[in-house]
Amino acid sequence: MSDRKPATAVLLAAGLGTRMKSSLPKAQHPLAGRPMLQHLIESCSAVFDRIIVVVGPGMEALEKAARPHTVVVQAERLGTAHAAMQAAGLFGEGDVAVLYADNPLITQSTLERLLATRRTTGTGLALLAMRPADPARYGRLVTRPDGEGGETVDRIVEWADASPEQRSIGLCNAGVLCAEARRFAGWLAQVRNENANHEYYLTDVVALAASEGAQVRYVEAPEEELRGINSRAELAEAEAVIQRRLRLRAMANGATLVAPETVFFSADTILGRDVTVHPNVVFGPGVTVGDGTEIRAFSHLEGAFIGERAMIGPFARLRPGTQVDAAAHVGNFVELKGTHLGAGAKANHLAYLGDATIGARSNVGAGTITCNYDGVSKHRTIIGEDVFVGSNSTLVAPLSLGDRAFVAAGSSITSSVPADGLAFGRARQETRADRAIELRARIRKEKR
Amino acid sequence: MSDRKPATAVLLAAGLGTRMKSSLPKAQHPLAGRPMLQHLIESCSAVFDRIIVVVGPGMEALEKAARPHTVVVQAERLGTAHAAMQAAGLFGEGDVAVLYADNPLITQSTLERLLATRRTTGTGLALLAMRPADPARYGRLVTRPDGEGGETVDRIVEWADASPEQRSIGLCNAGVLCAEARRFAGWLAQVRNENANHEYYLTDVVALAASEGAQVRYVEAPEEELRGINSRAELAEAEAVIQRRLRLRAMANGATLVAPETVFFSADTILGRDVTVHPNVVFGPGVTVGDGTEIRAFSHLEGAFIGERAMIGPFARLRPGTQVDAAAHVGNFVELKGTHLGAGAKANHLAYLGDATIGARSNVGAGTITCNYDGVSKHRTIIGEDVFVGSNSTLVAPLSLGDRAFVAAGSSITSSVPADGLAFGRARQETRADRAIELRARIRKEKR
Amino acid sequence: MSDRKPATAVLLAAGLGTRMKSSLPKAQHPLAGRPMLQHLIESCSAVFDRIIVVVGPGMEALEKAARPHTVVVQAERLGTAHAAMQAAGLFGEGDVAVLYADNPLITQSTLERLLATRRTTGTGLALLAMRPADPARYGRLVTRPDGEGGETVDRIVEWADASPEQRSIGLCNAGVLCAEARRFAGWLAQVRNENANHEYYLTDVVALAASEGAQVRYVEAPEEELRGINSRAELAEAEAVIQRRLRLRAMANGATLVAPETVFFSADTILGRDVTVHPNVVFGPGVTVGDGTEIRAFSHLEGAFIGERAMIGPFARLRPGTQVDAAAHVGNFVELKGTHLGAGAKANHLAYLGDATIGARSNVGAGTITCNYDGVSKHRTIIGEDVFVGSNSTLVAPLSLGDRAFVAAGSSITSSVPADGLAFGRARQETRADRAIELRARIRKEKR
Repeated sequence: MSDRKPATAVLLAAGLGTRMKSSLPKAQHPLAGRPMLQHLIESCSAVFDRIIVVVGPGMEALEKAARPHTVVVQAERLGTAHAAMQAAGLFGEGDVAVLYADNPLITQSTLERLLATRRTTGTGLALLAMRPADPARYGRLVTRPDGEGGETVDRIVEWADASPEQRSIGLCNAGVLCAEARRFAGWLAQVRNENANHEYYLTDVVALAASEGAQVRYVEAPEEELRGINSRAELAEAEAVIQRRLRLRAMANGATLVAPETVFFSADTILGRDVTVHPNVVFGPGVTVGDGTEIRAFSHLEGAFIGERAMIGPFARLRPGTQVDAAAHVGNFVELKGTHLGAGAKANHLAYLGDATIGARSNVGAGTITCNYDGVSKHRTIIGEDVFVGSNSTLVAPLSLGDRAFVAAGSSITSSVPADGLAFGRARQETRADRAIELRARIRKEKR
Repeated sequence: MSDRKPATAVLLAAGLGTRMKSSLPKAQHPLAGRPMLQHLIESCSAVFDRIIVVVGPGMEALEKAARPHTVVVQAERLGTAHAAMQAAGLFGEGDVAVLYADNPLITQSTLERLLATRRTTGTGLALLAMRPADPARYGRLVTRPDGEGGETVDRIVEWADASPEQRSIGLCNAGVLCAEARRFAGWLAQVRNENANHEYYLTDVVALAASEGAQVRYVEAPEEELRGINSRAELAEAEAVIQRRLRLRAMANGATLVAPETVFFSADTILGRDVTVHPNVVFGPGVTVGDGTEIRAFSHLEGAFIGERAMIGPFARLRPGTQVDAAAHVGNFVELKGTHLGAGAKANHLAYLGDATIGARSNVGAGTITCNYDGVSKHRTIIGEDVFVGSNSTLVAPLSLGDRAFVAAGSSITSSVPADGLAFGRARQETRADRAIELRARIRKEKR
Repeated sequence: MSDRKPATAVLLAAGLGTRMKSSLPKAQHPLAGRPMLQHLIESCSAVFDRIIVVVGPGMEALEKAARPHTVVVQAERLGTAHAAMQAAGLFGEGDVAVLYADNPLITQSTLERLLATRRTTGTGLALLAMRPADPARYGRLVTRPDGEGGETVDRIVEWADASPEQRSIGLCNAGVLCAEARRFAGWLAQVRNENANHEYYLTDVVALAASEGAQVRYVEAPEEELRGINSRAELAEAEAVIQRRLRLRAMANGATLVAPETVFFSADTILGRDVTVHPNVVFGPGVTVGDGTEIRAFSHLEGAFIGERAMIGPFARLRPGTQVDAAAHVGNFVELKGTHLGAGAKANHLAYLGDATIGARSNVGAGTITCNYDGVSKHRTIIGEDVFVGSNSTLVAPLSLGDRAFVAAGSSITSSVPADGLAFGRARQETRADRAIELRARIRKEKR
C-alpha cells in the first residue's frame, strides 16, 4: 500500500434540492437518522485517503456534518464541473473521484472497483454506469471492445442528442468520474458552458479525455446505488434501501425479525445472537442489544445498552443513557431515561424512570414516577437491590431507597429510606356509607 | 361555460355487496376514514353540475352520506340498467354519466376526459375502458378506426360469448357510460332482461346505441381507478391506493415521511413544509401540522391543530379539540383531548390532559391527570403561563392554576391556586426502620 | 375409508440450521408464534394417520413440541436418507411420506394430492415438484409421457451433473417423497454415501425406485410451499407468507383490515363479522373478537376474549386472562391482565387493571392502578356495577368496591367500600400565596 499514489474523493454537496421544497440543503436531509452526506463520507472513508466536500454558501450545518474533512465553498452554482473545479487546487497527485452527496447509497465495494478500474487505464478515466429499469432521461454509454476482452467507453450521448438506436442502449451514465489528478484538473479547466443552461457539466470531461486519447473505462453498479435523490419521495426510497440493508445484516448475524419490513434501524444498531425483534420496533441511534433478548412490538429505543435475556416492551420507550442489565424487564407504557435498571429488576407497567439507578431484582410498581425535575435542575433517584416500590408511587428526587426497602402503594416519597425500611406517604382512607347516592344527586343537580 | 349543457352524474350505490359479509351496504364501507361513496361524490362534484345517488331500500345511513345530493331509492334490485332507470326521470337535458359507488378511486381527470369525449360524439356515447393486468372476466371492447384518426367502439363482447381471438383483446369495459340525456333515457327503456339472471344490464345500452348508429367512443383509464370493490380484500387494496396517493401528495408538498408505507392519512390531513413524520403514525380526520414540526413514531392524531416547530410523540395521542402551539412538546404516553397546549409548553410523559387550557411555557409533570369527568359532566382545567405542575398530580376540575403557580409532586389539587401560589396536597411521609423485614415475613406467611 | 391402508408422515427435524446462527434447533424457530415444526404437524394431522418426528440429539424442547407424536432421535447426522431410516422400523404398512420440518408452509391440499397420486402408482412413488422463479440450485425432473396422458418421472438430475438443456428444465425436485411403506424401507436401506459429503441422500431413492421399474409420479405445488428455510431472512419470508394467508382468511370472513400488511395474527385468532382492525395491531395467541368490535391502531392483544361492539385502543394492551364484554371500552395506554371488564364498562386512559373484575357500566378513571402484587402473591380487585373510580386512584388488592360506589380522584383505597359508599383517601390541599416565588428562588440558588 505504501508506494501507491493517494486517492482523493471530492463530494459535491452544494445543491439546494429545490424539488425537496425544504429550507435544508439537500445533502443535509437525514437517512437512517443522519445527514445523507455522512453516509457517503462513511463509504468513501473506507476507500479514499482524503475527502473534500464542496458545499454551497451559507451551509454551516452541512459544513459541520462534513468535519473533520476539508470543506470548500462553491460561491456561485455554475454546474457540476464548476463545483469540482473549486477543489482542483487541492487535488494533489494520485487519483481523484468526483461523487455526489445525493448518491448516499453507493457502496464501498463499488468505490473500490471504480478506483481499481481507474488504475487499469494508465492516466485515463473510469466512470460509474448503471442499467436503470427506466433509462429514459439518462445519457447513454457508447462502448467498443478494448482489444483486451473488455470494453472502452467511446463517448456519452446525452438523451436529447441520441438516435433511436442509441436510445435503445441500456447502459447509462451515473455521472461519477475517477481520473488521474493532474489530467482531471486539466480537463476540468477545459470544460465550457456553451449550452442552454450556461452550466459547466462534469460529464463533458469524458469527451475531452477521449479526444486526448485517454482510455475511458466503466464500472457497472446497481441502479439502487446510483439513482440520485431529488425529491422527498426519492428520499423515502433511499431510506427504504438503507433499511433493507440493515435488516438483512441483522438477520444474517443471527437475530429474528418477525416482520423485517416493520423494524427501523439506525446505522449503528447492534443486535446480539438470538435476539428477537417483534413487529413495529424503532431503533434510534446508539442501541446495543445483548444475546437472547426479546424486543416486543411497538417499542422505541435510542441510546440504550441492553444486556442478555432481557425483555423489553411491548410499548417500551428507552431514551438516551439507559442501561438495562441481564434478564431485566421493561414493560408497557414505561419510559426510561438516563436510568440503569439492574439485573433481573422489573418495571412492567406505566412508569417514568428518569435519572434513576435501580438495583438488581428490585420491582418498580405500576404507575411509579420519579420526579427528577424541579423546574430548574435534574436530580437522581438511587434504588438499592431487592427493593419493592409500591404502585402509583411518587419518588421525589434527590432520593435513595436502601436495599430491601419497601414503599407502600400510592405513596409520595420525599426523603430517603434506609435499607430494610418501610415507608408510607399516603392519606388514610375514609369511607362514608351511602354517601355516593347523595354525591351523585348533587352532581346531577349542578349540571341542570 | 354558461352556454354549455349541464352534466349530471348518476351514482349507483344500491348494492349490498354480499361478498363483503357485512351488515353495512357496500358503498358505506369506509376508505381513508369516510364512506367510499363520498370519495366518488367528491370527484364528481368537481366535474358534474348535478349528482343523483341511487340507493337500496333501508339504507338511511347511506342516504345521509349522500346529502345534500338527490337520492333515489331502487326498491327492487333488478340490475344496473334498472338502477339507472330509477333516476331517468331526473336526467333533464345535457349529459348524463352513470358511475358505480364501488369505483371510488376514479379521478377527476378521468371524469373530465369522459365528459369531453362524450361531447365529441354528437348525441352518442362515451364509455370508460381499461387494460387490466388480468383481463379474464371482463367484457372486451371491439373497436374500429373512426376515420378521423381515432377509434370507435363497435361493440362489447361479454367474456362468455367471446371467441379466442376476442379474448386476446386487452381493452376491457369498465361499465361506466356517459350519454346525451334524452337518448340515454330512451336506450335504458329499451334494455331487456332476457338473460340467465333476468337482470337489466347497463352494458346493453352500448349495443342499443350502436344499433341506432350513435357514435360510441371510449376513454382509457388506469385499472387502479376502475377495478370494482367486491370483497374486504379489494377494499383493503383500494385503501392502499388512496394512502399511496396521499403519501405522495404530502411528500410533494415538502414533508419528509421516513417510511411512507407506515403512515396513514385521512383525506383532509394538511402537513406544512419541512414537517417530518417518523414511522408508524396514524392521522385521523381533521389534522393540520405546522412547518418544521416533528411527529415521532407511534403517534395517533385526530382533530388536532399543531403549530410550527412542535414535537409530538413518540406514543402521543391527540384527540379532537386539541391545539398545540408553536414549539410545544407532547411526549410519550400522553393523551390530549379538547386541550390547548400553549407555545413552548411541555407534557412529556404519561399524562392525560382533557378539557384543559395550558399557558405558554408551563410544564406538566409525568403522570399528571386532569379529572375532567365527575360521572355526569365534563369540567375544564385552566392552567396559566409558566406554571409548574409536579409529577403524578391529580387536578380535579373545575380548577384554575394561576400564572407561575407551583404544584408539588404527588398532589391532589381540588381548589384553584392563585398566581405565584404554591400548593401541596399529599400526605406526609412516615418511615419505619427495619419494618420491611417484618412486613415481608407477614406477607409470606399469609401466602402459606 | 375403513379399508384403506394407513398413511404415515415422517418429519425430518434433526437439522441444526447453522445458517440461522442460533442456539435453537432450526425446526423450533417460531412462525406466527409457534415452532415451525408445529405448523407442519398441523397440516399433516389432517391427512396422515400417524406422524413420526425425527429429531437430533439433545433437542428436548423440540421433542416436547412434537408430542404426542412419536419421536425418533437421529444420533448422528449422516444425511436425509439416514434420518428417514431411523424411522423405518416404524413404517408398518400403507403409505409413508417423508417431509422436512423446514417446509412448514406446505398445505393440506398439497399433502392430499401427494398421497392420492402415490396411490395411483401401484407400489411406486410420488414426489413433490415446483417451478421456482430462480431454479438454479435445485435438482431437475426429467419426465416422459406415461402413456395415460400424464407424465412419469424418469429421473432427477442434480444441478451439478445437469447438461445445459437439462438446466433449462423449470420443474424442480422439492425433496418430499411418498412411497409404499415396505418398498420405501427397502430403497432407503440401499442408499449409499459414496459422494463428496459422505452423506446418505433421500433423493437417491428415486433412482433406486426407477431402476426397479417402480412408477414415479410427481405433484406440482407452488414454490411458496416448498422453499426451505435456511436463514433468518427465509424465516421472515415464511412468516410473511403465513401472515398473508391469515389476513386473507380474516377478510374473507367479513373483517375489515384497513391496512392488512400492518396487522399480525396468530394462527388461532378468531375475528367476528364487521370487526374493524385499524393499522398496526398485533394479535398474540388466544384472541377472539366479537362482531362489530373495533380494534384501533397500535393495540397488542393476547389471550383475550372480546365481546361484540366493544372499542379497543388505540394503544391498548390486553394480556392473557382478559375478558371484555359487549360495548365495553378500553382506551389508550391501558393494560388489562387477568381482568374481566363488564358490559359497557370503560377504562379509557392510562390504567393498569390486573386481576380485577369490573362490573357493567363502571367507569375506571384515568391513571387508575390496581395494586395486585405485594411482592409475593397476586390479589384480586372486585368492582361492582355502575361504580365510579376517580382518576389517579390506587386500589390496593385484595379489595372490593360495591355497586354504585364512588371513589374520589387521587385516592389510595386499601379497604373495601360498600355498595353506594363514598371513599376518600387523599390528603387535604394546602395553598400558600406567593410561596412559589420563594421556592423557585431557593431551587435556583441550590443549583449554583
